[in-house]
Amino acid sequence: MRTPIAQTLDIELPIFAFSHCRDVVAAVTNAGGLGVLGAAWMTPDELDMSIEWIEKEVDGKPFGVDLVFPGTAMEEEKSPQEYLDSIPADYMSFVTRLLDEGGLSDLSPQDRDAYMVENARKMAMTNKKSQDQLDVTLARSSVGLVVGALGVTPGWVVEKAHAQGVQVGALVGTAKHAARQREAGVDLIVAQGTEAGGSVGSVASMVLWPQVVEAAAGVPVLAAGGISRGSHLLAALSLGCQGVWIGSLWLGTVESELSDEMRDRLFAAESEDATVARVMTGKQGRMLNTKYVEAWQSQGAPEPLDWPMQSILNGYSYKRAERARNLDYWTYAVGQVVGDMKGQTTVRREIERMLIEYSDALESLSNVTELE
Amino acid sequence: MRTPIAQTLDIELPIFAFSHCRDVVAAVTNAGGLGVLGAAWMTPDELDMSIEWIEKEVDGKPFGVDLVFPGTAMEEEKSPQEYLDSIPADYMSFVTRLLDEGGLSDLSPQDRDAYMVENARKMAMTNKKSQDQLDVTLARSSVGLVVGALGVTPGWVVEKAHAQGVQVGALVGTAKHAARQREAGVDLIVAQGTEAGGSVGSVASMVLWPQVVEAAAGVPVLAAGGISRGSHLLAALSLGCQGVWIGSLWLGTVESELSDEMRDRLFAAESEDATVARVMTGKQGRMLNTKYVEAWQSQGAPEPLDWPMQSILNGYSYKRAERARNLDYWTYAVGQVVGDMKGQTTVRREIERMLIEYSDALESLSNVTELE
Repeated sequence: MRTPIAQTLDIELPIFAFSHCRDVVAAVTNAGGLGVLGAAWMTPDELDMSIEWIEKEVDGKPFGVDLVFPGTAMEEEKSPQEYLDSIPADYMSFVTRLLDEGGLSDLSPQDRDAYMVENARKMAMTNKKSQDQLDVTLARSSVGLVVGALGVTPGWVVEKAHAQGVQVGALVGTAKHAARQREAGVDLIVAQGTEAGGSVGSVASMVLWPQVVEAAAGVPVLAAGGISRGSHLLAALSLGCQGVWIGSLWLGTVESELSDEMRDRLFAAESEDATVARVMTGKQGRMLNTKYVEAWQSQGAPEPLDWPMQSILNGYSYKRAERARNLDYWTYAVGQVVGDMKGQTTVRREIERMLIEYSDALESLSNVTELE
Repeated sequence: MRTPIAQTLDIELPIFAFSHCRDVVAAVTNAGGLGVLGAAWMTPDELDMSIEWIEKEVDGKPFGVDLVFPGTAMEEEKSPQEYLDSIPADYMSFVTRLLDEGGLSDLSPQDRDAYMVENARKMAMTNKKSQDQLDVTLARSSVGLVVGALGVTPGWVVEKAHAQGVQVGALVGTAKHAARQREAGVDLIVAQGTEAGGSVGSVASMVLWPQVVEAAAGVPVLAAGGISRGSHLLAALSLGCQGVWIGSLWLGTVESELSDEMRDRLFAAESEDATVARVMTGKQGRMLNTKYVEAWQSQGAPEPLDWPMQSILNGYSYKRAERARNLDYWTYAVGQVVGDMKGQTTVRREIERMLIEYSDALESLSNVTELE
């Protein structure tokens, strides 16, 4: 299964891993796949340090960085304080009351404001920040792939990346967006079905993947959304994709960013517990259903704010939940494969499992197709 | 791809077709697959006539009947008039006002009531009706498969069917339900992902199918939800299923029950236009998004009634829409594959297309897997 894109990127396995955690990125790359660091919220300095760390771990093997590029995504730029000031008072009181009723101790007003300003600084994307992130990324020679998580990839991104010999990828949730990304000149399209974690559209992988393969008209497509098994890799190849892009599965590994308590919550969940809401970021996304998510969707709750205000507001709630060690009032982006995650594991073990399952599925398929 | 279940049922192709339309059922069976007649709303007499008609068309080849069996689905039995009386007055006025504002001429009070009573009679499932439907079905020797569309299959259904040498299938949307159906003794489980048309759960096919294959523990599984291409058949086999169960695709064929105008609406739609709502039946289902569906989901609209009251109420709206030839105030159950349906076709042409695509996909897959 060394597909053309795997050959282009010089990787053994067409298994791509999205993670906010550099440990996962390095472990996947070292196991023969390609780790992609979700770095949109990092400062250029943080990003540079993370890339440097990964470079040391992977010893020249290629990996990727996932960013958000301005354009369709950001019409206006506000200062952190301006973002903070634009959160309506009744939203603050909704969240405060909710957490009070849950028995979570409050932060001091000073701590609350300081934390929210810090969070606003992190969340607020600006043109300059994106350009700096890209420059930092392209200055590092081990980065083989830059992926845009949102919106049509701007021309300057493609030009700068190609000038450094770096491939450009883009995430899409519809065939129409795939056609636009192809026109924008990307080298790789990630077709992400609604079963994925985080920002999602409504079209499911089974329908979406072959539609995107058609619209991509020759540009390699990776299958994303709903992938946890080796047989999924075989299904993705059957549907014309050149590999898989996996996010949620790594959350169950010891390398991931989650605490043991949060991981246990994921292991206890079924696929139906990964629900779609606007609670986390203001954009439609899939996340673990918790008391906090339900409260935002109950009668009388306000409509979630637009991005990034909803994320900034959540920064406050999550901080209180974190201090109270109460995961009922927190959530995390996770896809429907959460139902397949049943115990703590490691990146290497997961990739080995998938390869064995892939071989088994291929053998079973050969038996069936030979019956013709 | 003559999988074990295809051998058991003595069919050439493991392509199962759900349709409310006997013409589609016969055409699929004659093309080497197995047509299944959606007959839950038919009187035993209507069902008997339909089966007789299909038997003549298919010349001894096997086909199936899809029914709703009482049990979990129906706690109480009401007379048609009782159902009608239990529709709240403000629901009648919501719908009446909506259609008035749309400029659709009203029915006379007599016509309206007569039509709704007739509709209530059709929709109201009773134990006796189900038993009569099953008896009529099993009395016909060409029926090889009976499928329960809703709830755990009752023991008496399995016993009666097996006594006649007829296989029993059941539709599920979660792995948990698959385990219950296996315990109930069914011979075949249809795993239907959220991308399907009609009643659906929330788990997408990519995640659901292998989960159901595991839970079925040896009972053959058909893949349903999101299937329109030959490569989907290959993906289904890759994921451990023994065949595919297709519904929406046939709506684009000349054999189907839809008018040319409604078919044109489907051909104009994208996958995102197949939306999930409780509008059609009161149960969560996927259907074409229209003005009527949007109106029920707009601010201030009442929550849809429970099943079957919502269906009975819709009978009135649809009759007005039908008389006014205004499809904005109608809808139809369809899955996300609607985005792949782009022009009028025939059952035979669709099956031939899928078989060619299947061969192409298998060849491409062989090329990729040989690269190892």
